Amino acid sequence: MGHAGVMLNTYPADLGGVDRQVLANCIEACFDCAQTCTACADACLSEHAVAELVRCVRTNLDCADICATTGRVLSRHTGYDANLTRAQLEACAQACRSCGDECGLHAHMHEHCRVCAEACRRCAQSCNELLAALG
Amino acid sequence: MGHAGVMLNTYPADLGGVDRQVLANCIEACFDCAQTCTACADACLSEHAVAELVRCVRTNLDCADICATTGRVLSRHTGYDANLTRAQLEACAQACRSCGDECGLHAHMHEHCRVCAEACRRCAQSCNELLAALG
Amino acid sequence: MGHAGVMLNTYPADLGGVDRQVLANCIEACFDCAQTCTACADACLSEHAVAELVRCVRTNLDCADICATTGRVLSRHTGYDANLTRAQLEACAQACRSCGDECGLHAHMHEHCRVCAEACRRCAQSCNELLAALG
Amino acid sequence: MGHAGVMLNTYPADLGGVDRQVLANCIEACFDCAQTCTACADACLSEHAVAELVRCVRTNLDCADICATTGRVLSRHTGYDANLTRAQLEACAQACRSCGDECGLHAHMHEHCRVCAEACRRCAQSCNELLAALG
Repeated sequence: MGHAGVMLNTYPADLGGVDRQVLANCIEACFDCAQTCTACADACLSEHAVAELVRCVRTNLDCADICATTGRVLSRHTGYDANLTRAQLEACAQACRSCGDECGLHAHMHEHCRVCAEACRRCAQSCNELLAALG
Repeated sequence: MGHAGVMLNTYPADLGGVDRQVLANCIEACFDCAQTCTACADACLSEHAVAELVRCVRTNLDCADICATTGRVLSRHTGYDANLTRAQLEACAQACRSCGDECGLHAHMHEHCRVCAEACRRCAQSCNELLAALG
Repeated sequence: MGHAGVMLNTYPADLGGVDRQVLANCIEACFDCAQTCTACADACLSEHAVAELVRCVRTNLDCADICATTGRVLSRHTGYDANLTRAQLEACAQACRSCGDECGLHAHMHEHCRVCAEACRRCAQSCNELLAALG
Repeated sequence: MGHAGVMLNTYPADLGGVDRQVLANCIEACFDCAQTCTACADACLSEHAVAELVRCVRTNLDCADICATTGRVLSRHTGYDANLTRAQLEACAQACRSCGDECGLHAHMHEHCRVCAEACRRCAQSCNELLAALG
């Protein structure tokens, strides 16, 4: 079990019937994707072809910020607000689709984009699974 | 003109026909609301009645994170992605409505909640105006 | 008075004798600098000469993150920890010096770097004034 | 190998002789600690004894922000600035010491504080190891 799952198990109040595994997976996918997108933006900056990667840097920066915020929102359970959580999860799924698509365009040229596209797709899928589980 | 408007005017490429004043207002509203919600969460923690304010603290923390991320996304113009921007703006409008409503419940008791509810409503309105301007 | 000063005045407990004006100035300088550095990194990405600005983008991204975190730490007063606050203020003063110097190198070429260098220097000075006021 | 180590191996330019394992460990410790402190602050809010935990919530919030920013700074290698990196690492080590100590006071009562104190101590140690490795 990852650290997010360990912390979920220490929460002292009711989690409201959410699927713990789906929630823990999504929290960890968000934090991993935030780190990966931050590193991919920086790796793009270090490429000779940086001028062809500016859209990729920008999408990585947005996706890193959005995943980090979504991972924080999902790490909180007290005073749960379904509308707020759902809207942020939808923004995160969209950012991860955008960034996965953009990094996917450069995956054959740059290994960091290939790894990052995978992290984005995994996070988009985790967000969608959590949205489905929240009903 | 605020600092966000000053920086908008230095952007070297095309801004794509967006209303600069509406965009600058929204960026500044997001950053101001992020600061105000961070301070309101902390002020709630310092109240004797903190046990009655835990939902308010939580919503403040979410709203602070979401506004900060939205303000950053809106501060970037290179490689603009309409779907990503719109989804994050909708999440921000929702978070500001939730937090404005929650702080509004305590506004008659706590001045920090009264000021914070106003900042949240102003930010929600700025997000909705920008969403309308983006078409 | 700016929004950070307004919120300071609503804090329900003792602020421990800190100079309110110096504290409010520093909070607002941190949030303004975080926005300005985020926008400057993006403006650099949009320049034809982006390949010559990669160090500037990177330093802007670090400075934006560090100023945002410092602004949040300074917006909290409950359970004040002098060692933690002082260490983060010193990191922020250093980041603002680094970023002000780097942007200053490009200020004659790029208006966004000129404005950003000023924001960084103002924030570095505010951090140093607050460090001095904290004793 | 964790995701931070995978991304380090895709970096296209020179990493300047830093010990990759020490760097990857520190990046992952920062992101893990940021998640854990965010969750611990929220778990404290849900305790009946929240009024006795307000200092713990506050230190958790600071530590989460500082670890998140430090993890981002360390995920960037382009245009490395030793002074900036070192100052932020020192702030992070201090925040993790403060938060580990505070959570440690409640570890016998609250499992989330026990787990969080461990994450903070691990992150403080990783920061100190990286500071030593950077020379």
